[in-house]
Amino acid sequence: MPADEEQKKPLTKKLSASGIFAPIQDSLAELDEFLEGQISQFSPVTRPLVKYTLSHRGKRLRPALVFFSGMRADGVAEKNVITGAAVVELIHLATLVHDDILDAATIRHASPTLFAKYGAHTAVLLGDAILAQALQLASAFDSAELCRAIAVATRKICDGEIWQTTERGNSELSLESYFQIIQMKTGELFEISAFLGATLGGNGAEYGKACAEFGRRIGRAYQIFDDLVDFLGTEDSIGKTLGTDFASGKYTLPMILFLQKKSPQQRAEISKKIASGLLSISELSAEMREAGTFAESKKFFDEECRAAVAAVAPFENFPGTAGLVGVANFVAAQVENFFAAD
Amino acid sequence: MPADEEQKKPLTKKLSASGIFAPIQDSLAELDEFLEGQISQFSPVTRPLVKYTLSHRGKRLRPALVFFSGMRADGVAEKNVITGAAVVELIHLATLVHDDILDAATIRHASPTLFAKYGAHTAVLLGDAILAQALQLASAFDSAELCRAIAVATRKICDGEIWQTTERGNSELSLESYFQIIQMKTGELFEISAFLGATLGGNGAEYGKACAEFGRRIGRAYQIFDDLVDFLGTEDSIGKTLGTDFASGKYTLPMILFLQKKSPQQRAEISKKIASGLLSISELSAEMREAGTFAESKKFFDEECRAAVAAVAPFENFPGTAGLVGVANFVAAQVENFFAAD
Repeated sequence: MPADEEQKKPLTKKLSASGIFAPIQDSLAELDEFLEGQISQFSPVTRPLVKYTLSHRGKRLRPALVFFSGMRADGVAEKNVITGAAVVELIHLATLVHDDILDAATIRHASPTLFAKYGAHTAVLLGDAILAQALQLASAFDSAELCRAIAVATRKICDGEIWQTTERGNSELSLESYFQIIQMKTGELFEISAFLGATLGGNGAEYGKACAEFGRRIGRAYQIFDDLVDFLGTEDSIGKTLGTDFASGKYTLPMILFLQKKSPQQRAEISKKIASGLLSISELSAEMREAGTFAESKKFFDEECRAAVAAVAPFENFPGTAGLVGVANFVAAQVENFFAAD
Repeated sequence: MPADEEQKKPLTKKLSASGIFAPIQDSLAELDEFLEGQISQFSPVTRPLVKYTLSHRGKRLRPALVFFSGMRADGVAEKNVITGAAVVELIHLATLVHDDILDAATIRHASPTLFAKYGAHTAVLLGDAILAQALQLASAFDSAELCRAIAVATRKICDGEIWQTTERGNSELSLESYFQIIQMKTGELFEISAFLGATLGGNGAEYGKACAEFGRRIGRAYQIFDDLVDFLGTEDSIGKTLGTDFASGKYTLPMILFLQKKSPQQRAEISKKIASGLLSISELSAEMREAGTFAESKKFFDEECRAAVAAVAPFENFPGTAGLVGVANFVAAQVENFFAAD
C-alpha cells in the first residue's frame, strides 16, 4: 500500500483506555494494591510523598504491556507478573518526578507536580528512592538476567535524556540521532516491559523476542506522539504543562523535519529566534503546519505502530496478543485525534 | 573509663590515608581500572561526564571497607570483591552528584562540582544513570540477596535525606531522629560495604555480621565528622563548599546539642535568626564552642568509633581486620585534627 493511500485511511477509530484495559482490569487492580503496599517500605515522612506520586498515575501503558505479554490462557496474572508491572511503573514514575524538575513543569496528570508541591530538593531524592525501590523489587526475580536488563534500561533512559539535553538548541540534529535518543529515553522501558511480561508469564523466548520488538516500536511511537503533543495539544486535554520542549530548545521530530526543509543559514536563524524568544510556539506551529511537517511526523508515527503490530502478528493465538494490538490502536488513536480536530 | 578521662586522651595519632590503604593498594588500582572500564557503557555524549565524576573521587573509604572485609589470606581481592567495591563507590558518587545540586555546592574534592560545570539538568540525569549502572553491576552477584540489600541501602540513603530535608529549620529535632537519619543517609552504605566485602570474599556469615556492625558504626562516626566539618573545617583543607548545612537550616549533632541547652523560646528565636540571616555561622560557632557542644559532639563520635572497633575485635586473626581498625583510626584522626588545632 503506497504511503499516501495509507494516510487517507485512519489507522484506528477512537478508543477509550478503559475499553482497551478491560481484559486486564483485575491485574491493574492487583497492581494498585501491590503499589500501595510498597509505601510502608519508606520512612514515615516519605510515605505521603510516595502516596502522592502513586495517586497521580497516568495511563499505565507500561504495566498494560507487562500484563498483556504475560497473560495466561485463563487471563490471570501470576504474582511475579504483578511485580514486573510494579517495577516498570515505579521506574516510569521516578523518571517523571525527575523530568518535572528538569522541565520545571508544574502540572502532570492534571495535578501539581511533586516538584511544584515539594520543591526540587525533595523531588530529586524521592525520584532516587522510588528508583531504588523498583530495583529492589527487580532483585527478587528468579533470573538475575531480568534484574540486569531492568538496570540497563534505566541507565539508558537517563543516558538518552542526557544526550537530548546536550543537543538542546542544535538546529543540525539529525533524524538518526533523534531516533537513537527516543529509543533510549522511551523505547527501552516499553521494550523491557513487554519482554518482562512474556518472560515472567512463561510465554516462551520466541514470544519474548516478539514482545520486546512490539514494546520498542510502540514506545518510539508513543514518544513521537508525546513530541507532537508539545505542539498540538492543549493543557486542558492533556493535563500537563506543554511547550516545555520548545521552551528548552529541545528539537523533536516535527521540528527536525521542519528545519530539514530550510538552508543551514535559515536553520541557524530560526534557532536563534527561538532562543531569544522572538518566535512563539504558536507562530512556529502555524509555519510547521503549512510546511506539512505534522503530517510528515505522523507518517513516522504510523510506521512505528505498524511495525509494532507486525512483530506480534505471528503470535495471534497467544492470550494477550489481541490486548497488545489494542494498546497499539489506543496509542494510534491519540494521534488520530489531533488530525481529526485539525 | 569515665567519659571526661577519655576525652583527655586522644583516641589516635594523625594518620595519612595512603598509609592506611597500603595493604589494599593493588585492589584500589584494580578498582580504578574497573571503574574506567564502565565508562564505555554510556553513550558517547555521556562518557566525558562519567569520566569527570570518576576523576574527582574522594577518600574511597567505602571501597576500602569492601577490600578489608573481603581480604583473602594472600591479600589478593577476588574479582567479585572488586565489583562490590565498584558498586558502593558508584552509589556514593551518584549520591554526591545529586547532593551537590541540592546544596548548590560548587566545590567538591577541590574541583568544580558536576552541577556547577554542567547544570542541574545534567546532574540529575547523570546521578540516575550512575545509580542504575551500580545496580546493573550488583545484579551480576551470585546472590540475589546481595543485590536486594544494595537496592534497599540505596533507597534508605535517599529516604534519610528526604527526612533530613523535611526537618530543616526544626529547632525541636531530637537526637534520636538525628541518629536515625544519619544511620539511613550514611550508615547504610558503610554497613553494606563491609558486609558485601565479607560475603563476596567468602569470609563467613559471622564475620559478615561483625563487619556490617563495624560499617554501620564507622559510617555514623563519619557522618558526625562531616557534620562537624560544616562548622569547624576550612574550604582549603576540606576541598568542598562548607556551611551548606547551616545555610539550608539543616540541624546536625552540634546544633541539636547546642539547642538542647536552651529553652523552647530561645530555640525558636535562634532558629528564626538563622533563617533570616541575622546570625552568621561564625557567630554561632563561637557560641557553640563556648557552650562545649563541639566537645560534646566528639564524645558521640568517639563512642561510634569505639563500637566499630569492638565489633570486629573478636576477629583479629582475619586478614583484613587490622585494616578495618586502621580505617576507624583514620576517621578518628580526622576529628582529632580539629581539636588539636583548636
